[in-house]
Amino acid sequence: MDIKKFRIKQGEEFSLEKADPSNTSQFKSKEEAEAETESLRKRLVELQDILYAEKKHSVLVILQGMDTSGKDGTIKHIFSGINPQGFNVTSFKKPTAEELSRDFLWRIHEHTPAKGYIAAFNRSQYEDILVPKVHGTSTDSALDHRLKHIQHFEDMLSDEGTKIVKIFLHISKDKQLEKIHERMKEPRKFWKFDPTDLLEREYWDAYQSAYEEVLSATSTAQNPWYWVPANHKWFRNYLVLRILVQTLEGLNLEYPALQATPSDLARYMNEK
Amino acid sequence: MDIKKFRIKQGEEFSLEKADPSNTSQFKSKEEAEAETESLRKRLVELQDILYAEKKHSVLVILQGMDTSGKDGTIKHIFSGINPQGFNVTSFKKPTAEELSRDFLWRIHEHTPAKGYIAAFNRSQYEDILVPKVHGTSTDSALDHRLKHIQHFEDMLSDEGTKIVKIFLHISKDKQLEKIHERMKEPRKFWKFDPTDLLEREYWDAYQSAYEEVLSATSTAQNPWYWVPANHKWFRNYLVLRILVQTLEGLNLEYPALQATPSDLARYMNEK
Repeated sequence: MDIKKFRIKQGEEFSLEKADPSNTSQFKSKEEAEAETESLRKRLVELQDILYAEKKHSVLVILQGMDTSGKDGTIKHIFSGINPQGFNVTSFKKPTAEELSRDFLWRIHEHTPAKGYIAAFNRSQYEDILVPKVHGTSTDSALDHRLKHIQHFEDMLSDEGTKIVKIFLHISKDKQLEKIHERMKEPRKFWKFDPTDLLEREYWDAYQSAYEEVLSATSTAQNPWYWVPANHKWFRNYLVLRILVQTLEGLNLEYPALQATPSDLARYMNEK
Repeated sequence: MDIKKFRIKQGEEFSLEKADPSNTSQFKSKEEAEAETESLRKRLVELQDILYAEKKHSVLVILQGMDTSGKDGTIKHIFSGINPQGFNVTSFKKPTAEELSRDFLWRIHEHTPAKGYIAAFNRSQYEDILVPKVHGTSTDSALDHRLKHIQHFEDMLSDEGTKIVKIFLHISKDKQLEKIHERMKEPRKFWKFDPTDLLEREYWDAYQSAYEEVLSATSTAQNPWYWVPANHKWFRNYLVLRILVQTLEGLNLEYPALQATPSDLARYMNEK
């Protein structure tokens, strides 16, 4: 399987309706994907270790998707296992008054990863286009400007050593209802129930077309978007791991050489 | 085994020389501890899930210890596996000019955990007493004031819902040399070699007695210090897990109830 199949091409029309959220590519069952998923997970741990040792690149993983599409679950499944010292998650909620009194990238910039680190964004700068677009609280021209500013911002980050991986988790409308139902039924998931999910659900179609437009506009060659079928958690996990591992492999990471001077060595030999 | 054995009592004289860094308690080998360590690891994952769901308490884990005592390794082994979305690590390095131009707790305060979260500090506010004490760059009276300020600060955090777990990783001087040697010999560990470790090693005894004094002074009933024998990584991991699990059990965490109004339920039923 080539992950390019799930890469969105900039400027080309992208239809979420034609993108099957239940797609599982070459796999017929969870069991079939298990061995490969496990070896990708191990590879990710190895690659992160080198990334952290080398401190030459940083990696920013942006996760977007409708409510209940599995952003939290993806973070939990993909990244538990890696060394938490080199990893950081930021969940962007509704902006606070302090955040709203600055430009929309101000709060984002603060959480971009340092060299050697992987950062995951659970929601991101893209919310500041999607939400106003769906609810009509901003003008088209202001939102077009924001699209351009996001691209410039991401280009700057890449040029300065940050690899950006953008993932859109794609679920169906039925699947969303099923997930909301789970949250109302299972005591261990009660805390995930959020009544606004039911309200926002009424704007499903508007969100889908806003996403189509935004993903297509901002999927550059350097920082592409991937759409990930997310009705099946196991395939979602497999594919996100594949995308991450392949992206990290592309950085040609290497453990650095020993930085010891002759006097360090003398000091050591003296003690031994 | 009772973890109290490793708890330091405030005000009582504490001798690191009498505390055996190779202690493995009831276990004769790594293999003997494996099953229990694994079940503690699983329990920690469960407890963190409830902590995150409940958002009533936060947990701050402070890790201190001589260079190469295994602070990084402890974080990697204890916390990889938990949901990274509810966890955050801060490594406190030598203070920057910006940090030094504020009080010593300023940079610390910024990284204390929000409710529902676990934060780990790799080094902490205690460095700002230990380092000047060892190198004689501050007066005793100024450092005594800092000790008192740390206590007040930690009391405030506890009163506001943060459980603080303070861990001192105890290794022997020989073990340190062995670890420095590893870093000079193994290509995958070259990046961990830090010549200042060799320089600071010359102050070993001064650090040990500074630690004895500081640990004993700041190990309160509410926020005690534990000394953890760390010559054997497997025992260190076992004991830190024990301490954490027992501390989290003491919080009586519970999944919260469903927060749905009748109109939320009606909206849902309507869709179904």
